[in-house]
Amino acid sequence: MSISERTTRQSRTYQQGTYTFDSLDLQRGGKLSPITIAYSTWGKLNEAKNNAILVPSTLTSDTFVYDEENPDYSSDAWWNFMVGPGRPLDTTRFFIICPNPLGGCYGSTGPSSINPATQQPYGMDFPLVTVRDIVETQRKLIEHLGIERLEMVIGGSFGGQQALEWAVTYPDLMKKVVVVEATATMTTLTLLWSEVSRQIIKIDPRWKHGSYYTSDEKPLGGLALARMLALTTYFSEEQLGERFGRKITLNSLVPNPSETEDMGERFTVENYLYHMGGTFACYFDPNSYLYLSRAADLYDVSQGYPSLEAALSRIRSKMLFIGCRSDIRFPAARVRWLAEQVCVCGGDAIYVELDSPLGHDAFLREQEQMSSAVNRMF
Amino acid sequence: MSISERTTRQSRTYQQGTYTFDSLDLQRGGKLSPITIAYSTWGKLNEAKNNAILVPSTLTSDTFVYDEENPDYSSDAWWNFMVGPGRPLDTTRFFIICPNPLGGCYGSTGPSSINPATQQPYGMDFPLVTVRDIVETQRKLIEHLGIERLEMVIGGSFGGQQALEWAVTYPDLMKKVVVVEATATMTTLTLLWSEVSRQIIKIDPRWKHGSYYTSDEKPLGGLALARMLALTTYFSEEQLGERFGRKITLNSLVPNPSETEDMGERFTVENYLYHMGGTFACYFDPNSYLYLSRAADLYDVSQGYPSLEAALSRIRSKMLFIGCRSDIRFPAARVRWLAEQVCVCGGDAIYVELDSPLGHDAFLREQEQMSSAVNRMF
Repeated sequence: MSISERTTRQSRTYQQGTYTFDSLDLQRGGKLSPITIAYSTWGKLNEAKNNAILVPSTLTSDTFVYDEENPDYSSDAWWNFMVGPGRPLDTTRFFIICPNPLGGCYGSTGPSSINPATQQPYGMDFPLVTVRDIVETQRKLIEHLGIERLEMVIGGSFGGQQALEWAVTYPDLMKKVVVVEATATMTTLTLLWSEVSRQIIKIDPRWKHGSYYTSDEKPLGGLALARMLALTTYFSEEQLGERFGRKITLNSLVPNPSETEDMGERFTVENYLYHMGGTFACYFDPNSYLYLSRAADLYDVSQGYPSLEAALSRIRSKMLFIGCRSDIRFPAARVRWLAEQVCVCGGDAIYVELDSPLGHDAFLREQEQMSSAVNRMF
Repeated sequence: MSISERTTRQSRTYQQGTYTFDSLDLQRGGKLSPITIAYSTWGKLNEAKNNAILVPSTLTSDTFVYDEENPDYSSDAWWNFMVGPGRPLDTTRFFIICPNPLGGCYGSTGPSSINPATQQPYGMDFPLVTVRDIVETQRKLIEHLGIERLEMVIGGSFGGQQALEWAVTYPDLMKKVVVVEATATMTTLTLLWSEVSRQIIKIDPRWKHGSYYTSDEKPLGGLALARMLALTTYFSEEQLGERFGRKITLNSLVPNPSETEDMGERFTVENYLYHMGGTFACYFDPNSYLYLSRAADLYDVSQGYPSLEAALSRIRSKMLFIGCRSDIRFPAARVRWLAEQVCVCGGDAIYVELDSPLGHDAFLREQEQMSSAVNRMF
């Protein structure tokens, strides 16, 4: 293992290693060469090298899954409450690995990386990558770390798609898999929200067909708006109505994405969304958003197999599926259905539903319910 | 009544009249002068002038509610199945009036109208108009037509907000009111979808702060995208999954709003949305979209009264509320709740729920259920 650099972003510093390998033949054709995968780790790999847990990240999170210095509160570490001594992903027992996906912008090869053929950032010349490609790069990373079999793969949302793909593609490489708020394929509605988000980025003239890297201006407005739309599908009306309702804000200093005047009073919830979208746009790469969100859309666990049953029948791991009753992006009924199908196909799967109003965000917020569910696997 | 012109749009021709009056003091301040309201009518006003039914339009529909020449099928007349001999809005018995709202772009004064002060289109100098302002202009139109009391006001969605506002503001001016898929206020989530839609229009550089009227290019991409986002909230997963699922289209000729290359295969549902958005953008005015959608956001039936109860207690009409079980924009539970509140406040209200997978669009598609519900009022 080679934690070779300290990465600083916003106000935080965290350890991040990289693993670079020669090339990868991509699922949809083409080849990338070379490929670097960035990752962070916590805990220690034991001598038997059988205590590793892989935590594939969400669509937009980095590798900073756990903040050792602020274990009880962190606005940066994206799954803080799940990791650490005495927690489900116990760092005194397990070696936790969080990789940045291929196509991402937090250290792994992606559209903002330099294309060796042109010595310019790839931009839209970056090839289409899939969840399977992402998982394949993670398998190579695991191999590089000397790990023959993982204790667990656990991920939510886009990370849940990766966890599911691990279970089907490499059934013998892990003991347990936890798929949180992810399904065999996206819903049609989520597909559309995703496409509208991408079109918003692309309609921002500063996007310049993806070649904004050397430009003075980046398509921050488009990316902020795309994020805002995505956020509306991460929330639920129950939560938003309770927290914001129709409250009016007196703070209109947060610029809206188009930097135009408000039409009448500004609702607090609008202000909140402007803030969330604008902050996100400052640190994420718009092209990575395009590529990773498209990978999520195109994901179908049955791809390459004669049927969904054929795919799910490959699973050998103990599986836990977690849905949330208020999730409009990956509806609970579909997560439950998938767990049932795994059982129908002879697998060992349980389903737990988060009773939470927090929508798709619940897996990142509901500490007690999430911990209690995942603890059932140990 | 003065049906003074024939209006042609796309392939159709229909009768449209206009009524122009001096000025209106607006609810949120300012004055518009002069004001023209365009409207279409069907059937005949009787001598007692007590058989008129007002049909306020939806956010984006024109005044062409009924196609006499194609009564059984029309892709243009937006509520065709509700109107005509033997139908709920029976043209042999009733005089049907469909006005274009103030702020609209189908003949009524709106942001694309000429501002007398500058001899240029208003653009974003158009003042903020409210649902109450819109209803007030309709009251003036009714008065102008010599109608003292309407038989009914019936509308869905934005038209439902107008119908509700009629019931509260002018309780003695109609016998019956039908509020379809509208609520006392929008949900917080719908508010956000609406704001993201507007920001998308405004981020299109061709919008030019609303001054695109004399420009070669209009913000068609932005408007198409805004419409696409709105459409996702008019549909339901049940409907989209059944109709489109993850089918792939071989027809990639329909341009997407950003006119960029597809990323991988194109889903049929994406193609459908591009087509719907692009078509809409060709005939609707982007600024009207901004103003009318903001009027819908800002609508709160209790505004100007000490409480919701105080507002609803004013109602004297027989009320019918119609919700749809799969509507994510104006959830059925909230429509039902509003009907119950009217009863709690001493009103005469019934609630009917459309058992339909068609989402917010159900009121424009479910002929049998809609007819059967509205027939209960006669």
